[in-house]
Amino acid sequence: MAPRILICSTIVWAHDDVKRLLGDIAEVVYVDSPDRKSFLAEFGPGGKYENTVGIYRENESSRKLGVFDKELIDGLPSSVRWIAHNGAGYDPVDVHACKARGIYLSNTPGAVDDATATTALYLLISTLRQYSVAERSLRDLKWKPKGLNTRTHDVTGKVLGILGLGGIGTRLAVLAHAFPMRVVYHSRHKSPDAPDFCEYFENVEDMLAQTDVLSVHVPLREETIGLVGEKWIRALKPGAIIINTARGKVIDEDAMIRALEDGHLAAAGLDVFPNEPEVNPRLLEFSQVTLLPHMGTENQDTQRLMEVRALTNLKDFLNTGMGKDLVIEFKTSNGTTKVKQKL
Amino acid sequence: MAPRILICSTIVWAHDDVKRLLGDIAEVVYVDSPDRKSFLAEFGPGGKYENTVGIYRENESSRKLGVFDKELIDGLPSSVRWIAHNGAGYDPVDVHACKARGIYLSNTPGAVDDATATTALYLLISTLRQYSVAERSLRDLKWKPKGLNTRTHDVTGKVLGILGLGGIGTRLAVLAHAFPMRVVYHSRHKSPDAPDFCEYFENVEDMLAQTDVLSVHVPLREETIGLVGEKWIRALKPGAIIINTARGKVIDEDAMIRALEDGHLAAAGLDVFPNEPEVNPRLLEFSQVTLLPHMGTENQDTQRLMEVRALTNLKDFLNTGMGKDLVIEFKTSNGTTKVKQKL
Repeated sequence: MAPRILICSTIVWAHDDVKRLLGDIAEVVYVDSPDRKSFLAEFGPGGKYENTVGIYRENESSRKLGVFDKELIDGLPSSVRWIAHNGAGYDPVDVHACKARGIYLSNTPGAVDDATATTALYLLISTLRQYSVAERSLRDLKWKPKGLNTRTHDVTGKVLGILGLGGIGTRLAVLAHAFPMRVVYHSRHKSPDAPDFCEYFENVEDMLAQTDVLSVHVPLREETIGLVGEKWIRALKPGAIIINTARGKVIDEDAMIRALEDGHLAAAGLDVFPNEPEVNPRLLEFSQVTLLPHMGTENQDTQRLMEVRALTNLKDFLNTGMGKDLVIEFKTSNGTTKVKQKL
Repeated sequence: MAPRILICSTIVWAHDDVKRLLGDIAEVVYVDSPDRKSFLAEFGPGGKYENTVGIYRENESSRKLGVFDKELIDGLPSSVRWIAHNGAGYDPVDVHACKARGIYLSNTPGAVDDATATTALYLLISTLRQYSVAERSLRDLKWKPKGLNTRTHDVTGKVLGILGLGGIGTRLAVLAHAFPMRVVYHSRHKSPDAPDFCEYFENVEDMLAQTDVLSVHVPLREETIGLVGEKWIRALKPGAIIINTARGKVIDEDAMIRALEDGHLAAAGLDVFPNEPEVNPRLLEFSQVTLLPHMGTENQDTQRLMEVRALTNLKDFLNTGMGKDLVIEFKTSNGTTKVKQKL
């Protein structure tokens, strides 16, 4: 009997790819459970999901099942060996629960870099040039807001500070370098893959003091909640701008709002919020902010790439026992995986 | 007596530069005439503007004086030898009337390239990704518009068609190449300064048939009014997008609106309109268009550069008899100037 792969959310673009990638090596089953309880029950003997070895999921699947927290992970049978998450950020899956159960978790890192970095670049241009308020003024039939030129700047020559130079941050660095902007960055460690033109700052506050536009590209983890807080925001150059296309909770929203209020921050460009889809109504009061409803990867070209990449992780796992995009928590410093060692 | 330079509109950023550039070689006079009639009268004997040899102007100066049409140009005394227009597009100055009177005209070409091309790039991202409607949806407290991902695309890999590869078009080509986009262009002649990666199409319709996003960068002249009309728009690939940061009248607005209506055009990103500051209310009905109130160069960094560049043309004329940015109508194919030859 072919191993069973459970598709836990809607495949939107990659229908043909499901067949192409998994058709010959797995039995593909599509989730149809109305809630978490009946979902978990179907993994039992004779259930529709019995003998599932791999699960495909994305955030959309949480509508009926909730996030993949410890309770859900612990409720999965031991047949489940791989969860292929479609998305770069995998905070809706409890990676520690996965590790404890010996279930691999993969994400889709490379596939999101271009679209998310493009979104960050858009927010960067929009805030430096104040195009969001300019368009609202035109649409209110008031043409150009008066005095906007005194609050707006060229992109070229400004200093872009990147917090977290992973795939998305590096891609943004390349796009910004075309102007050029001066690109500085801070990560826990100097990146060996950083382009030559990116200047590393071990001390984040030294970087912030020189930064015109700070773009946040760190994943949401326990230790990154509120990472960009009062202290770091105040360490930014007065009149600086913050861009966030990562996760809302990485920034202390109250501290950011205070800095917008008193003018320490000139503007903010936000694609993500702490409690999506809710948006703090205070943010709507600032004419100088650009706000997008988590559009980072919201286009058919990238979404198809992401679906294919998540499915490919399942395919590779079935064929070789390992997928390319195993998340970092499974990797030891020498590149092997802890689960693999344990199993 | 030092030659007189008349500043015909407000210097916003370059006050110190006026002194630095012209203080030692000219008497600088600031316009204070309430209307065209009294303006022209002051050039007479004993008038405030008597013996003016150079005029600094920008479009803002037209509020009281009207555009620099034939009537105004013909009303200037023969002492006036140079008009330094602040702006890339000099359509509000009758260049033919200037030539007939032996008055040189300069613009500020290079200074606007970066800011205007950045605006075009913003409109390109906004329309391909549909971020304008996305932000309106969030601000209406509706979060993400449903199904937007089916109408949106990555920038990377798309084909950018540039109409007119001058300074602004070339700058946009460089910014788009960072993704990369494939860059194709049409001009009256193949540009010897075109970057290697730009593909020239002598036949504009051959180019349009391959173009995902068309960006317009031709000046407004008698022969470019309505240049992008029904025929060219229909020659575009179905689902294409038009970006305009040049002049509204270069596009046949009715033909563009018809193509938006029937879906031949997926979207449009417009910074300029035929009758600014009026905007055709029909354009506001299309959720998929991004509309800016002529923000191309609307920021302090570029505006200061432009003011300095226009003032520098006056300085160079006073010192050497020739400014760097003499407009193309004065240039013959061998690079000399017709007026110069005549005078």
